[in-house]
Amino acid sequence: MLLLKKTLDAIRPTDRLVMAAAQKAIDYCLKPPGSLGKLEDIARQIAGITRQIHNTISKKAIVVMMADNGVYTEGIAMYPQDITRIGADFVTSGRMGVNFLARYAGADIIAVDIGIQVDVDLPRVLNRKIRYGTANFLQEPAMTREEVIRAVETGIEVTNTAIDQGYDLFGTGEIGIGNTTASSAVLYAFTGAPIERVVGRGAGLTDEAFERKKEVVKQAVHLHRPDPEDPLDVLAKVGGLDIAGLTGTYLACAARRIPVVTDGLISNVAALAAMRLHPTAVEYMIPSHLSSEPGARLLQEVTGLEPMLNMDMRLGEGTGCALMFSIIEASLRMIEEMGTFAVIGKSREEIADTIRAYRGQFPR
Amino acid sequence: MLLLKKTLDAIRPTDRLVMAAAQKAIDYCLKPPGSLGKLEDIARQIAGITRQIHNTISKKAIVVMMADNGVYTEGIAMYPQDITRIGADFVTSGRMGVNFLARYAGADIIAVDIGIQVDVDLPRVLNRKIRYGTANFLQEPAMTREEVIRAVETGIEVTNTAIDQGYDLFGTGEIGIGNTTASSAVLYAFTGAPIERVVGRGAGLTDEAFERKKEVVKQAVHLHRPDPEDPLDVLAKVGGLDIAGLTGTYLACAARRIPVVTDGLISNVAALAAMRLHPTAVEYMIPSHLSSEPGARLLQEVTGLEPMLNMDMRLGEGTGCALMFSIIEASLRMIEEMGTFAVIGKSREEIADTIRAYRGQFPR
Repeated sequence: MLLLKKTLDAIRPTDRLVMAAAQKAIDYCLKPPGSLGKLEDIARQIAGITRQIHNTISKKAIVVMMADNGVYTEGIAMYPQDITRIGADFVTSGRMGVNFLARYAGADIIAVDIGIQVDVDLPRVLNRKIRYGTANFLQEPAMTREEVIRAVETGIEVTNTAIDQGYDLFGTGEIGIGNTTASSAVLYAFTGAPIERVVGRGAGLTDEAFERKKEVVKQAVHLHRPDPEDPLDVLAKVGGLDIAGLTGTYLACAARRIPVVTDGLISNVAALAAMRLHPTAVEYMIPSHLSSEPGARLLQEVTGLEPMLNMDMRLGEGTGCALMFSIIEASLRMIEEMGTFAVIGKSREEIADTIRAYRGQFPR
Repeated sequence: MLLLKKTLDAIRPTDRLVMAAAQKAIDYCLKPPGSLGKLEDIARQIAGITRQIHNTISKKAIVVMMADNGVYTEGIAMYPQDITRIGADFVTSGRMGVNFLARYAGADIIAVDIGIQVDVDLPRVLNRKIRYGTANFLQEPAMTREEVIRAVETGIEVTNTAIDQGYDLFGTGEIGIGNTTASSAVLYAFTGAPIERVVGRGAGLTDEAFERKKEVVKQAVHLHRPDPEDPLDVLAKVGGLDIAGLTGTYLACAARRIPVVTDGLISNVAALAAMRLHPTAVEYMIPSHLSSEPGARLLQEVTGLEPMLNMDMRLGEGTGCALMFSIIEASLRMIEEMGTFAVIGKSREEIADTIRAYRGQFPR
C-alpha cells in the first residue's frame, strides 16, 4: 500500500503555463489557428506533461498485462482458456496483433505475467504473477483487497522500471481470456449503466453466450455489491489482475509525468479505475481508438477521453496504442518544423490580433 | 480529351478473387476474425488493387495541387490571396503543415502549380499552370470546358509520371485561397443539399463572411445551373483548377491500380467528381480523416468513404493523408508477420468451422 500511496501523492496537474506557451508557439505556425485540431491538443498536452515546449519521444513501450479470469468457467468466452498462455508465447516471439503494429511504430513490448493460470516459463515474459488467475467472481470475490493492491503496485513497479530505462511514451495492452467480462463488470459496478451499454460480444460470442455474459456481469455485481466510491473494492470483487496492473501503469505515468495511451475496453476500464483513484491521472492519458465493444462509448462519456481512431477494432493487446504512437510522434514535429507567420513579414502584434479574431469565431 | 477517355476506359474493378484470398489469409491470423476491423479492410482492398495478397509500399507521395480562385474577390476568404504563392514557396522548402507530417511518414510531396494567379519560379514546383487562377464564378464560369479537361488531364499526367517513377501510394493535397468555396459550390451542384450542410468556415471566417460565402455558393450555382450529370460541366462552371487536377490524380490511380488516399473537403470533392466520371474509381480510394468542415459529413454519405481519423483537422494540404499512410503501411504487415491458428495445432477444417461460426455472429 505504501508504493500506491506514494504514487498517488506524487501526481500533479499538467503545467498550464507551459501548455499556454506551447499553444502560442503552435499559433505562430503558418496555418489557421486550431486547424490541426487534435494534433495541436496532443502537442500542447505533452508540453504540459513534460513541462517543455519542445518534445521528442525517445523510447516507446506497450505494457501488456497477461492474466486469466476465473469467471471463464461460466461459459462467457469464445476461446479456450489456454489462449492466454499461447498469447504469452506468441507476444514474446513477435507474432500477436500488437507485435506487428508495435514493430511498425518502433515500440517495444513489455510482457508481464501478472496472473496467468499456469506457470509460464518464457525468458521475455516478466514473471510478476500475483496468483494463478482470479477466482470465479460469480461465486466469490475475484481476489482479495491485498492482492489487488499488489497487482496495482506491480503495474507501478514495472512501469517505473521502464521509465528509469528511458521509456517516455507508454501504451496499455492486455491478453487474457475472459477479460472483457471482468472489464464489463468493473464498468457496471462503477456506473450502474444499463447492461446493454456495458457488455459486448468480446472476441465473438454466440447469442446464447452473450446473454449468459450479461447475466453473469449483473449477478456478480449484485452479489458482491462493490463500493463504487472505492476503486480497489471494485477491482478486487469483480475485476481482473490485468486491469489492476494497467491501473498501476496509468498511475505511475501520471506520477512520473509521462504520457500514456489508452487502448480498448479493458485498457479504458483500467484508465477509469486510475482516475477514480486520482482524478488528475486523466491529464496524462491520450486516447487512441474507439473499440467496437459497446462499453467503449460509455467509457468515452465517463472518462471524457475522445478516441481519435475509428478502426472498428476490438482486439485489445494495445493494438490501438501502437497506431496512435505514430500520430503522437508526428504531432510533436509541428512546433519544430513548421514555418511561422513571422517569416512572411507580419508583426507579433498583427499575428496576435488575427489569432484573437479567429479565436472569437472558434471558441475552444 | 483523349488522355481522359483512355484513362476512364482503363479503369477496372478491384480483384474480388484476390480480395477473398487475402481475407482468408487474414482470418488465419491468431485473432478473432474481423477484430482488426479497418486494418483488415485496408489490407484486403490493397490486395484487390494490386492483385497480390502480399503487399508493401515502396514509395509514397502526396500530390499537392496549387491554384487560385477568382471568387476570392467576393470576400469569401480569411487570408490574403498571396498566401497561395507563399504556400507554394513554403511547401517546397518543407515548412507547411503537410511537410512535417509527410516527412514523418516518409512520403514525398509533388507540388504542382496548376493555376496560381502569379508566375511561380520555384525549382521544386512543377509548372503546369492552366491559367492564372479561375474566373470569379459569381460573374462567369470558373473556366472553360477545354480548360477543365486540360486540368484533369494534367492531374492524370503528373500522377502517371510519378507512378512510372515507382510511387505506389498517393495522397491528395491542395493549397489555394478560396478553394473551400469552390469545393462547396461543386458539392452543392452535385447534391443540391441544404447550404448549411455544404458550406463551412474554411480557414476561419467571421460570421459576416460566412453568410457571404453561403450566398456566393448558392448564387453561383443558380446562375450557371451546371448539369450534375456532367461532372466536367460542374467543375468548369463552379470548380477550381486544384479540384480538377486532383480528380485526374484519382482517375490515374484507378486506371493504374494504385491506392490513393483522400484528405479533407477539397480532396473529397475531387474524389466525388472522379467517381461521377467513373463509379469504379472509388474502389481505389482509401479515406483518411473526417474534416471538421460541415461538407465532410455530407461527402461521407455521398461517396460512402468512411473516415477513420477523427482529428478535428481542417487544414487540407494532404495532412490527413500523411497521417493515414502510417496506418495503411502498418495494415500490410498483418498477413506477413502475424502468427496463425495453424501453429497452435488446429486443423484447417477446425479453423474454417470456427470462422464460419463467428461469421454468423458478425455479418460483414
